[in-house]
Amino acid sequence: MAIGLFVHPDDPRDWVGELHAVLPKEEIRRWPDLGDRADIEIALVGKPEPGALQGLSRLRLIHCLWAGVDQLFQDPTFPRNLPLVRMIDPGLAASMAESALAHVLAAHRRLHDYRRQQDAGTWKALPQPRADERSVGILGLGELGRATASLLRPFGFRLAGWSRTAKQLDGIACFAGRDQLHPFLQRSEIAVNLLPLTPETRNLFDAGVFAALPAGGVFINLARGGHVVEADLLAALDAGHLGQAVLDVFQTEPLPQGNPLWRHPRVTVTPHVAAFTDARTAIPEVAHNIARFRAGESPRGLVDLEAGY
Amino acid sequence: MAIGLFVHPDDPRDWVGELHAVLPKEEIRRWPDLGDRADIEIALVGKPEPGALQGLSRLRLIHCLWAGVDQLFQDPTFPRNLPLVRMIDPGLAASMAESALAHVLAAHRRLHDYRRQQDAGTWKALPQPRADERSVGILGLGELGRATASLLRPFGFRLAGWSRTAKQLDGIACFAGRDQLHPFLQRSEIAVNLLPLTPETRNLFDAGVFAALPAGGVFINLARGGHVVEADLLAALDAGHLGQAVLDVFQTEPLPQGNPLWRHPRVTVTPHVAAFTDARTAIPEVAHNIARFRAGESPRGLVDLEAGY
Repeated sequence: MAIGLFVHPDDPRDWVGELHAVLPKEEIRRWPDLGDRADIEIALVGKPEPGALQGLSRLRLIHCLWAGVDQLFQDPTFPRNLPLVRMIDPGLAASMAESALAHVLAAHRRLHDYRRQQDAGTWKALPQPRADERSVGILGLGELGRATASLLRPFGFRLAGWSRTAKQLDGIACFAGRDQLHPFLQRSEIAVNLLPLTPETRNLFDAGVFAALPAGGVFINLARGGHVVEADLLAALDAGHLGQAVLDVFQTEPLPQGNPLWRHPRVTVTPHVAAFTDARTAIPEVAHNIARFRAGESPRGLVDLEAGY
Repeated sequence: MAIGLFVHPDDPRDWVGELHAVLPKEEIRRWPDLGDRADIEIALVGKPEPGALQGLSRLRLIHCLWAGVDQLFQDPTFPRNLPLVRMIDPGLAASMAESALAHVLAAHRRLHDYRRQQDAGTWKALPQPRADERSVGILGLGELGRATASLLRPFGFRLAGWSRTAKQLDGIACFAGRDQLHPFLQRSEIAVNLLPLTPETRNLFDAGVFAALPAGGVFINLARGGHVVEADLLAALDAGHLGQAVLDVFQTEPLPQGNPLWRHPRVTVTPHVAAFTDARTAIPEVAHNIARFRAGESPRGLVDLEAGY
């Protein structure tokens, strides 16, 4: 039996080396050189080619190497009758939290406004709230949201969080479910999206959500482009209600040339780089999960296929 | 006897209200309405007009409302024979640390590079070091440098600090004095200047200092424009050695129209807004110092006129 590794041939990370280091006795086969496909017992998947997992007759476990598994379901041949695990990588969570902090602090210190002033040659100090006068809202309170909240806490912001199911976190006003989405948004001058993409959260950020944010609010999307109705986002920016959008993810990636988000004066575009899985921190987690699976225990990060994450 | 308040008439902060709240028995007189100048025992000074402190025959203490006192010495009539106290305001230190973090994280996550890519319509992920692979250097390890280090620490950066006199700080490689400046600079991919401006530090950042920073390094100046030889900074940027300069302060402020820093593609200009004294947190500190002074104790923040801070 073997472990199949389904990552793009151009991926520069040393997945095989890291796997050999922690699982020296396992046979690792890297797609597309799988040999006898019936040997593959466990599939480690990045963004596999559609159909890549077909014909793996003795496959027992699929372990995604990313935190978000939504893209796997776009392949109609993706096997839905096997346990699927998403990546819980402390390195990825730390990386995402760094990006979130960079963008929240830039918004808090009005660096987008000062960038526009620089472009216009304007020297003018703008009103600056203290951190304890500034409300920051985090959508998604899983590993990524909690890592972000931990780094935000020492600054003294007024923190709130929103999640599908009710959570309790120190120093954070927690909101849950659709009923509490608008009260949460209304107090979030800076809103950071870290939600998983599921049928429930697809197109969540629409005209109604943007209208609920405070005037001049900043929307930071580090999760998935599929969360956002881009036409509604542009309308909220053009109406002057939304102050700035910081977007790392888009409905179509790479963001197509000619998409108005590229050149909008109140939009910051980054090319899906807010967080990477780090093979060095991720592979030891994968090895733990394989050991747990073989011992008959539940792996960490098992996806609830009903909820979609 | 009275306390004289020397702040600009346009300053929007409620200095008098905050003073009355914590020192209800003191008589506060706000410049220029000082009445009999011989009544003024203590002067609280922002950026006083040149000569404003002349003729205060019974003045015993000058308490600056900013952290940096260098600008006071530009007035040749400024009294140098009286105890001078600089502001140690927890609100100002917190504000400066927020700004420093915003700029360090932007540099770490390569947001300046991504801004240029957005301007060019380029979608391309760039190599991203982990925080524990990134060296950040802080120049100045007083209240501002220590507050900045505290907020940086949880991110896991490789931290170093440089100061005039030797310091010891948890988790920070400490360098001191001119002899250790270059070894410190050579390991600082992101360098944050928080030094006081003194005869010793004026024009510290010259061609030699910029050459000592690693290639592609980022220089963040939140302290004083007088620290930087601007022609040398521009030369280091134009030579491609320095990757980015983030400048909140300048040799001449407001930064004159036509100064090439305004439009340089690798320079971020903010209009001296990295930190403000917050009257609400600062005035209680001033009140403590007045009480200590009257009790014959040394106020906190007493300036060493020899060292200049």
